[in-house]
Amino acid sequence: MTDATPLAPGSTIGILGGGQLGRMLSVAAARLGFKTCIFEPSGDCPASHVANFHLQAGYDDTAALERFARSCDVLTFEFENIPTTALDTLQAIRPIHPGRMALATAQDRLAEKTFLQGLGLTTAPFADVTDAGTLDAAIATIGTPAILKTRRMGYDGKGQIRITDPAQAAAAWDAMAGQPAILEGFVDFTHEVSVIAARGLDGAVACFDPGQNVHRDGILHTTTVPATLTPTQRTDAILIAARILNALDYVGVLGVELFVTPNALIVNEIAPRVHNSGHWTQAGCAIDQFEQHIRAIAGWPLGDGSRHSNVTMENLIGADMDRVPQIAATNASLHLYGKPEARPGRKTGHVNRVTGPAA
Amino acid sequence: MTDATPLAPGSTIGILGGGQLGRMLSVAAARLGFKTCIFEPSGDCPASHVANFHLQAGYDDTAALERFARSCDVLTFEFENIPTTALDTLQAIRPIHPGRMALATAQDRLAEKTFLQGLGLTTAPFADVTDAGTLDAAIATIGTPAILKTRRMGYDGKGQIRITDPAQAAAAWDAMAGQPAILEGFVDFTHEVSVIAARGLDGAVACFDPGQNVHRDGILHTTTVPATLTPTQRTDAILIAARILNALDYVGVLGVELFVTPNALIVNEIAPRVHNSGHWTQAGCAIDQFEQHIRAIAGWPLGDGSRHSNVTMENLIGADMDRVPQIAATNASLHLYGKPEARPGRKTGHVNRVTGPAA
Repeated sequence: MTDATPLAPGSTIGILGGGQLGRMLSVAAARLGFKTCIFEPSGDCPASHVANFHLQAGYDDTAALERFARSCDVLTFEFENIPTTALDTLQAIRPIHPGRMALATAQDRLAEKTFLQGLGLTTAPFADVTDAGTLDAAIATIGTPAILKTRRMGYDGKGQIRITDPAQAAAAWDAMAGQPAILEGFVDFTHEVSVIAARGLDGAVACFDPGQNVHRDGILHTTTVPATLTPTQRTDAILIAARILNALDYVGVLGVELFVTPNALIVNEIAPRVHNSGHWTQAGCAIDQFEQHIRAIAGWPLGDGSRHSNVTMENLIGADMDRVPQIAATNASLHLYGKPEARPGRKTGHVNRVTGPAA
Repeated sequence: MTDATPLAPGSTIGILGGGQLGRMLSVAAARLGFKTCIFEPSGDCPASHVANFHLQAGYDDTAALERFARSCDVLTFEFENIPTTALDTLQAIRPIHPGRMALATAQDRLAEKTFLQGLGLTTAPFADVTDAGTLDAAIATIGTPAILKTRRMGYDGKGQIRITDPAQAAAAWDAMAGQPAILEGFVDFTHEVSVIAARGLDGAVACFDPGQNVHRDGILHTTTVPATLTPTQRTDAILIAARILNALDYVGVLGVELFVTPNALIVNEIAPRVHNSGHWTQAGCAIDQFEQHIRAIAGWPLGDGSRHSNVTMENLIGADMDRVPQIAATNASLHLYGKPEARPGRKTGHVNRVTGPAA
């Protein structure tokens, strides 16, 4: 437990990463009267448009990291792949939330799945893959279809290869280019939900209602609340998220993706940050996931997670930007990220549509 | 009618004035993918915290105004008291919305009331006051109690003197220090409502539901939607706002304050900008008044003004900042403006509380 004196308005929150999550965190921080400083190697990044300061430097620039940390009162991040050396530099100067244990766990699929199983939670079957031989052994145990994933740095389906036949093993391992990997078995699930959960500096936990996710081409397409869940499943989903938060002594918002099967909720993965599947909270809750995260790391009371409206969130990806004029004419809540170009597969915005009062 | 080609995301919107209204306009502009440039003489102003650029210069600095206008694609403002010379400079370079007619009308209480009466709308009785003699004559016509107001530059009750007895006239006129003024008669109203109305570049009009205002010490304290109005009064309130928008060939959001009496809706005043009594839209509508204003001046389709939730907005003024820790613990939507100090009478934030689904 850390000192829980609430950070005073006017203090500066440092955010590592200048993408859309950093952008929306920055707006939320400003709404609570905080100043923001973005650390991001790219110029003209989305978060810098709505922040007080943008420190443009690389994650290997120790002097810049030190300057960044000293100019802030508390630090956080919008993505989990922060190099350990950068983390060392930063946490020696200012508190950073979520902390090292959460990052170390979520940065590595093997560590994450091992941690989740250690908590008694159900995951897809998995095996450590370090070379062609361990991949063959993993396929023999897990069977096909299965999916070979790099242990680190994967997101939106990147760094993943589907194996439908054991004969594909050698080519799949070659494609990993020597990176440590895990093989995951397929889960026969009916749908995916995610819980956006938060834990404060004082250990208080609050969860938003689970949202139901639909993916397209490996990227989140829509999230809808409420999700299709029995009351028991809904409670279980929230208890799973709370167990993870407590085990990690977590501070901030965490995204937990769950596969729903008739018999169990299976933890797909966790993200130690605000999460795309929580964007609906902007339209459905008094305090959204971004403000919830800022509140947590600032030692403020958390919002209770309650929902006043049902919402469907739709991601705008690549050429979806061409649909903005039509969407703008529909009274939907549009969020564009200010990215300079709309490349294929790149998230450039999202739309929240309120579908009615919360049931 | 102006060219209504929608401004493309990535364009820059220039905002004159760096207070809380400019701040919330800036966030709304960013949400639609626009960049923002704030023109404001003060350093570290609230709007600059969430804007791409802050041009710190005075309204008499013609070179700076020209630089500002050239760096933007369209211009707007958060306050109506822009000097005419500055307006001349700016509009010679880029479109500015709302335009000159709206500004000229709303900058001057005499011009405003004359305009409103010319539309067939009801205002408080008023008379032009240019010296002690015209004040005596005005009191003889209008009676007491009455209120002497400077024609220009008044807000939040500043520049106003109440006259309860004709014997107070001389002292009241002295206090005006020679500024042109008007005398307004008191209206026996039951309550005040305001309509936040918008008109697009294409002439389309959309109004939010009227909110009911409660003042304290001459400053707005709360706004609650829905307001207490008969269906006829509600329709009339919106038609009044629409008539004003059309008559001014207005582009942007306009605030219209109305006194409710048993027999009539009396126009108190109009504000050619986003308005404090429209802050509730942040929690009650898919598209709030700030985004509505940005959409209007950018030539985008307007939101339809519909409300999904009932809301009460409460202003935080001066020492109310001491209550922030308690408010933060109530799941309310808190908005702090990032002002360096909480002086008496200074608006430092507001709170939106959703009270239920819209009826």
